[in-house]
Amino acid sequence: MTGSKIRIGIAGYGNLGRGVALAVQESPDMELKAVFSRRPAESLGVIHKEVPVVAAEQAKDYVEEIDVVILCTGSANDLPKQGPDYACLFNTVDGYDNHSKIPNYRNSMDLAAKSGKKTSAICIGWDPGLFSISRVLFDAILEEGSVHTFWGPGVSQGHSDAIRRIEGVKDAIQYTIPVEETIEKIRKGEKGDLSNREKHTRRCFVVLDEKASPDEIESKIKTMPAYFADYDTEVNFVSEEELKEKHSKLFHGGFVVGGCQTGTHLDHQQTAEFSLKLDSNPEFTARVLVAYARAAYRLNQEGIYGAKTILDIPIKYISAKRDEDLYKEFL
Amino acid sequence: MTGSKIRIGIAGYGNLGRGVALAVQESPDMELKAVFSRRPAESLGVIHKEVPVVAAEQAKDYVEEIDVVILCTGSANDLPKQGPDYACLFNTVDGYDNHSKIPNYRNSMDLAAKSGKKTSAICIGWDPGLFSISRVLFDAILEEGSVHTFWGPGVSQGHSDAIRRIEGVKDAIQYTIPVEETIEKIRKGEKGDLSNREKHTRRCFVVLDEKASPDEIESKIKTMPAYFADYDTEVNFVSEEELKEKHSKLFHGGFVVGGCQTGTHLDHQQTAEFSLKLDSNPEFTARVLVAYARAAYRLNQEGIYGAKTILDIPIKYISAKRDEDLYKEFL
Repeated sequence: MTGSKIRIGIAGYGNLGRGVALAVQESPDMELKAVFSRRPAESLGVIHKEVPVVAAEQAKDYVEEIDVVILCTGSANDLPKQGPDYACLFNTVDGYDNHSKIPNYRNSMDLAAKSGKKTSAICIGWDPGLFSISRVLFDAILEEGSVHTFWGPGVSQGHSDAIRRIEGVKDAIQYTIPVEETIEKIRKGEKGDLSNREKHTRRCFVVLDEKASPDEIESKIKTMPAYFADYDTEVNFVSEEELKEKHSKLFHGGFVVGGCQTGTHLDHQQTAEFSLKLDSNPEFTARVLVAYARAAYRLNQEGIYGAKTILDIPIKYISAKRDEDLYKEFL
Repeated sequence: MTGSKIRIGIAGYGNLGRGVALAVQESPDMELKAVFSRRPAESLGVIHKEVPVVAAEQAKDYVEEIDVVILCTGSANDLPKQGPDYACLFNTVDGYDNHSKIPNYRNSMDLAAKSGKKTSAICIGWDPGLFSISRVLFDAILEEGSVHTFWGPGVSQGHSDAIRRIEGVKDAIQYTIPVEETIEKIRKGEKGDLSNREKHTRRCFVVLDEKASPDEIESKIKTMPAYFADYDTEVNFVSEEELKEKHSKLFHGGFVVGGCQTGTHLDHQQTAEFSLKLDSNPEFTARVLVAYARAAYRLNQEGIYGAKTILDIPIKYISAKRDEDLYKEFL
């Protein structure tokens, strides 16, 4: 790397944005130049006093001062529009995670980035992200269809939000818990499709509004399609104080496991596993985004434009170390 | 992928070469076209009767019939010379693993491959190889210097050979065993440099020649520099029959683990781990080589020439699936 630092902007300053600010601070090859937000600066609690907080619509004034903007807004409503808006002006990194819509998102980010000769690293994080690398590795090396992803134990933001949207629920946290017996079977090389129920259970801690009926709420949660109906779901009612005290940590994790049998008699079991155990999901995800900001910057310097997923980017691009040092010390 | 299959050659037909032949057979997008060997065809036991066994010096006659040659000969004496010889004629994959000489090997393979507009995937396997990906990932994402590699429990071919070279030793097997207490400390986020002794122990099973002195041999093993002197080494003497019966499996494995603390108070432990548990080291390594044969072929088709390590190659290139399907189903 040259002596000059990679100049970073952050768009969106929630849990993830704050994690990115911390991670940039810890990266000697980077500096934070601006935070773009739709909220007033005073409300953000930006950790670096010298970093300006800029209204999102003024971002375009910063094209000369920022190398990569890390997009820390939501996949559901924000990124589909904001992503391309930023991508035609800046190199970007985002953690777009709406799996079923990734092909569309990729197309629109690719067009936008290429229109401005910019590079966008999209769908970066741990899933999609690091887990995707392992899924493709294990599928290609071990055996097609033998690869399983387990999430948790950890807090699922999406499922917690789904409970919170039920009328009569004041607050809620949902833990996703992988089923240990199933994991053991997979590790031993058992095969076959697994149902959602066999892979994960869902444990909910719910604070009710005063007049709500526990039975009714429990039934509404347990029968909710897509989110809970296909799982063994446990519902616990707790006080607001207990929820705050015991259930406010954003820990998460999970793993990808794959296996196959090799040999002329297929009697050699081969198992591979990639796992994460995270006390803070947003702070770890932020670290991944920041490492891939390095990749977006470097790809762009080499004239490689457009939207790139984690599957398209050689690993060496995320390191601040020189290629020669990686070959020598890390290969 | 198109309808035509990738045409594979194998150079060298020991344990690894046989594993590659099996793995090619299991890959619907590939076919085995020839085995190159310095040994006579009859001695090889080639699994496919229709595949010709060709003397290594005739390999050049096959340039039109083979897309990728997978080099299955040794790193110590064979690959430094054979590698470049093949690389200027064919796309190649190899598992060169002499860590300290990788930069030199990479240079000579890069020159050779570029001279023939060919592509060579070098140092492919699990270490160097899959473990290298995790080392760079964890170093870049978690924290510099926090990444540790543990090998085993498993058979180290290099250490077994080192014992066999001692005069008075008829045969031997050496197991590398990671130290469980150290692993637990690392997983919990403990830091600091680790000595060889803290990370691995070495367990040896040795068959003596009739006249050899057990004490003398044990001392020679335990004091052997680089291989054993820096480790807690256990030496067991067994009969030839016991060695064959109980110690003939080539299982291996290991893992890369990295961790860091994040957050304004550094109180969030983040841990990542990549692990392999292999009943047959050569058969698994063969699978990895074959997947990267796909990558070498495809890179070459795209006009990307020269020597590429696993750190230089995007993951998607090893899959037989189309990019769009990977984005849709695996990301």
